[in-house]
Formats: sequence, C-alpha cells, structure tokens
Amino acid sequence: MKMVVMAGGQGTRFWPLSRQSRPKQFLKVLGEKTLFQLTIERLKKIVKTEDIFVICSDQYVPLVLIQAPELCEEQVIVEPAPRNTAACIGLAAISLHARFPDEIMGVFPSDHLIMDEEKFREVTEHARELASRGHLVTFGIKPEFPSTGYGYLEQGDRVESGSEKEAFRVARFTEKPDLETAAKFFTSGYYFWNSGMFVWSISAILEEIRIHMPELSRILDGLGDCSDWSEREQKLFKSAESVSIDYGVMEKSSQVVMVPCDLKWNDVGDWNAVAEILGSERKSRTSSTSTVLIDSSNCFVHSEGKKKIAMVGVNDLILVETDDSILVCSRDRSQDVGKIVHILKEDNPEPA
Amino acid sequence: MKMVVMAGGQGTRFWPLSRQSRPKQFLKVLGEKTLFQLTIERLKKIVKTEDIFVICSDQYVPLVLIQAPELCEEQVIVEPAPRNTAACIGLAAISLHARFPDEIMGVFPSDHLIMDEEKFREVTEHARELASRGHLVTFGIKPEFPSTGYGYLEQGDRVESGSEKEAFRVARFTEKPDLETAAKFFTSGYYFWNSGMFVWSISAILEEIRIHMPELSRILDGLGDCSDWSEREQKLFKSAESVSIDYGVMEKSSQVVMVPCDLKWNDVGDWNAVAEILGSERKSRTSSTSTVLIDSSNCFVHSEGKKKIAMVGVNDLILVETDDSILVCSRDRSQDVGKIVHILKEDNPEPA
Repeated sequence: MKMVVMAGGQGTRFWPLSRQSRPKQFLKVLGEKTLFQLTIERLKKIVKTEDIFVICSDQYVPLVLIQAPELCEEQVIVEPAPRNTAACIGLAAISLHARFPDEIMGVFPSDHLIMDEEKFREVTEHARELASRGHLVTFGIKPEFPSTGYGYLEQGDRVESGSEKEAFRVARFTEKPDLETAAKFFTSGYYFWNSGMFVWSISAILEEIRIHMPELSRILDGLGDCSDWSEREQKLFKSAESVSIDYGVMEKSSQVVMVPCDLKWNDVGDWNAVAEILGSERKSRTSSTSTVLIDSSNCFVHSEGKKKIAMVGVNDLILVETDDSILVCSRDRSQDVGKIVHILKEDNPEPA
Repeated sequence: MKMVVMAGGQGTRFWPLSRQSRPKQFLKVLGEKTLFQLTIERLKKIVKTEDIFVICSDQYVPLVLIQAPELCEEQVIVEPAPRNTAACIGLAAISLHARFPDEIMGVFPSDHLIMDEEKFREVTEHARELASRGHLVTFGIKPEFPSTGYGYLEQGDRVESGSEKEAFRVARFTEKPDLETAAKFFTSGYYFWNSGMFVWSISAILEEIRIHMPELSRILDGLGDCSDWSEREQKLFKSAESVSIDYGVMEKSSQVVMVPCDLKWNDVGDWNAVAEILGSERKSRTSSTSTVLIDSSNCFVHSEGKKKIAMVGVNDLILVETDDSILVCSRDRSQDVGKIVHILKEDNPEPA
C-alpha cells in the first residue's frame, strides 16, 4: 500500500504564524513537531518509509525534505499549480500508476491531527481490504459535537465488507451545515464528518476519474512521466478544473463506501482548534513561562519570543506573537483570521 | 512666584511601559512629549524658566535634566527617599525658603494633563493673589463625570478674594467615593475633584506644617542646606511619617481655600485614561500604522515596535507592546495593571 500525503495547502487562518512561505502543515502549532511531521510519523507506523509519498508545489519541496529527511526526492510529487484535490489526487494517482499499477493508495491531508493512532491503523487496514474489492473508501468520522465547520457524509446501506467491521454506502454528501441542521445530524447518529481521507486502488480512482471527470483524465494522460515539468505540461495541468475530489468523483461514483471511525480527529482548522486541543475548556493555556494572567479565563497564548506577556480581566482570547506580528482574536472568531492576510495583501502587494 | 514640580512618583499602572527606572511622568504616553515635559512647558507659559524647580529622588535627576535641558542642576531638589507629599512639599518649601523667604510657591504634580492652559494660567494667578493674603490654596476641578477614582473637595463658605473670581473654604475632604456617592457629589454641584495642585506662600506652608506636623517641622529644621545629603540627614528625612499634605496639613489648617476651576484636567491615572484622552469613545485608536482591526471597537493600541498588530472580534481592549513585554487588558480593568508588577517582582526579585 502506498500513502500519499497532500501538503500543498496554503492556509491563512494561522496568521501571523502561517505565511505563504510556511503554511499551516509545516508549523509547530501543537508542540515540538509540525503537523506534516506528525502525519508522516503516523503513516510510518502503518507502511515502510519508502511507501510514503508527498504531493505539493515546487516551493514546498525543500520544507518537505527538511522536515522529513527520511524521504528522498523521488518520493515528492510536484504539483505544477494548486488545482484543488481532484487534480492533485489525479496527478498523484497517474504518477504512482506508472510505478505501481496494481497497488492500493491512501490519500491523507498533511495538516490534520489524529490522536487515536492505533484505531487509525485498524481503519486504514479495513479500508485497504475494501479498496482491494474495487471500492473507493472514504473515512467518516463519528461526530464529537454538532460542528458547523465540517462537511458531513450520510450513512447509506451497509456494504458487505468481508469482515465484521462496518462499511456503508454514502447516501448523501452535505456541505457545512447551519447549527440547527448540524444538531439534527449529530443526534441522528447517521451522519459522519467528511475528513478528506481516502483509500482506493490506483487503477480504480483513475478509472472513476475517466468516467466522471473525462477532461481531467485527458489532462493527466498528457502529462508524460510527471517529473521535470515542461512548459506545455505545466500549462496543461493548470487548465484542470479546480474542484474537490468529493465534488468531482465521490458524489457521482457508485463505488464509494464509507468506513465509520472514531479517531479523535481534528482538522486543526484555526487557532481556536489548537487552543481546544492543547488546553482544557476553562483553563488558559500559554506557551510562554513568563505569562501573567489576572482574572482572565479561557485564554490561549502562543508566543515564539521571550517577551513577558500579561493579560488582565479578559476572557476567551487568543494571543499569538511572532517575531514580526501580534494577533489578538476572540476565540469564537478565529475562523476570520484569514481576512487579516487579505487586508495586509491589499495594503502591501508583497506576500504577507 | 516659584513653581515646584513633584516628579518622584513611581507609578506601576503603566506597565509594561513604566518601570521603576522610567516612571509614568517620564513617558510619552500621550504623544511626542512626556507628561513631565508637558508640565514644564505649561509652567514656562506662566513663570520664567529659572523660577521652575523639580523635586524627585536621586535616580530621576538625570531624566529630569535630559528631558528639560533648560533647567540647571540647582533647580532640582533631591528627595533622600519617597515619603509622600507632606514630606516632599515640606522639603521643597524649606529648600526654597533659604533662597526666597518671601515668595509664593506653586506645587504641581509632574504627571497630570491640563488641556485648557489659558484657564490654568488665570487660575494660578488668582491662587497667587489668595496666597499673598496668607491662604493655602488648593485647586478644585469641576467634575466632568461621577468619578470614583478621585478624591473630592466639598465647597464651603465663600471667601473674600479681592476679585470677582470665586474662592471657597473646603467644608470637607473626602477619599475616593463609591459610585452612588460619586453620583450624588456630581449632581450636587458642590463637590470638586481634589487635583493635588497647591499655591501658598513659602512661609505660610512652613508655618502650617509647624502647627499641624511638628515632627516633620523638626525634621526639616535638621536638614541643613538641603544639598549633598549626609548619611545623618538622609536617615533623618527617612524618619518622616509618610502621609499626604492633604491629610497632614490641608484637612486641619484654617487657612485653606479652594479655587474652583474647569481646566480639562486629567490625572492620566492608567492606560484607560490615555485611551480616553487620545481616542473618542467608540473609536479605536492605535499608535501603529500597521494595525488591522476587524470587527473590533473601542480598542486602544500602544506599540513601540514595528510589529504588525491585528485584532479580530474584540472590544474594549487595551494592547500595549514594548520591546520586552505585551499587555492585553480590558479597558475597565486598567487600574489593576499595577498588580502585574507585583506578581513579576515576586517571580523575580530584579526590578520589573
């Protein structure tokens, strides 16, 4: 089984820590290791290092090789341009197909957290079995709360999976719901978070792309051996439609099955997610030893410097300090941090 | 008329900008000039530069002479130790008495703001007239709101002042009131903020100290010529009781009169006072041009560095950044900023 880690994301919600040159997956938001490094480590417990591949844009290749020095350059697939997950996964599949035509392939985001790694290993093994029967497997995460920040998979008919472990058709893919709908989904027990983790055979996903995204299939066929992109090849890849694999293939294919799982998964979507992962609900968490909190609760401090930090009479705040910026954000507004980047870009055409 | 500026204060409420080595009066909290510099400038519009004196501890003498280079060393009276305003004023009076036995003396804090300087000049002139008749004159500020942060002077009988300008006995000195009492004071029209600004003849204040604080009087008489303190003199001064001139003399003397005035005065007591002076009530004010505010109101940012600062979804906050510290404080809690200094001192015996 080959594992592909998608590391091309350019998240802006972790400003001021994240920048275009060092996006979320390459940051140590949770401690000593970056989210990318945690992802590689998690996969190394399931497959051999040489079976792990990373796909990302040219500019992140040095970061990948520095943060995961056990990988060699041949294990990094270069995306000529960001074109969402359908094109990214198609490229990874066509690239691996030349070398491993009969293999199973897992696809995982590089910037998510999975705390129950043993269960992740078990579910991945189950998904591999299902993939070997021709299914396109997606991981459905058992919801821990009525999230309005995730898409949902509605559980359909049970699929014969050759084991006592459960797998289901997906009755419906839904976008991020409003709170009322999320509450209904949560209490029903039939809805699962769409985690964006997939397992399938390389030939099966290429066949499904051919059926449901013939234009992308044509582009992939024109890409040659997927190394040292010529100008023509780059232009060809950039002509791919920018859609998600869910929208482009999974919602249309009859081969899709979902494996429900409870992995203590988190997409680490913004600073508040980090605060919740690292700190308990009512306690403040700070990364700085010289922080003084007076009558302040539920605050989160991420500081990379040596400044003394003091908070007086404030609640539910996120404070992030880097060498060139300071963010103060209400915990319930951390999804809006990306707006800062857009405003700073308007003020200054240099990358923020 | 001689003017004495009291510059010995060691405020902690302006952490992290204020430190023991650079207290509030020597900081540029309001813009290009320090509060001390603004005070000297204000007095230079009333008297000649050589008639201005500063009293402070030894360690602040260099700051005084750097920030007011027009003053010479002989115009700085050195306090051997901080012993509150009674001893400070007594020392200033005894020191000036040797040189100017028949002069009028004004005493002014170095860290307050007076926006109506023309009216200040008029009131000071009026106070000088009253002082020349033997009165101890205190400035009563017409309240602008029911403050619980100031002491109050209750207006007593009107005093014949030799002009149409009003002056009154002080019926009562009151400490900082609770909100209910402050509201009563405010609406009554008979209460004035106790600003700690005084005018009297040098001989009169020394005589009143002799009557009401005989022990302090004895100490002052033992101080010699008030320069180059001997160890004996330092020890003697340190034995003075640490009380305010209000408590020690003004509340007891029959010579006290109050001149009511409306000077747009502010004691600049904490960061929120600065925020209110510099910014309008509902608008955020920042000292940094690279500050981005998203859905944030009534915030105040004081930054000495070049960091980008962004605030998202927060209200009524004060953010102060210096080269070694960051403060985040709710606007209604800025009077508690001094607590940080005490906590940091406990952690680290070095001056914070």
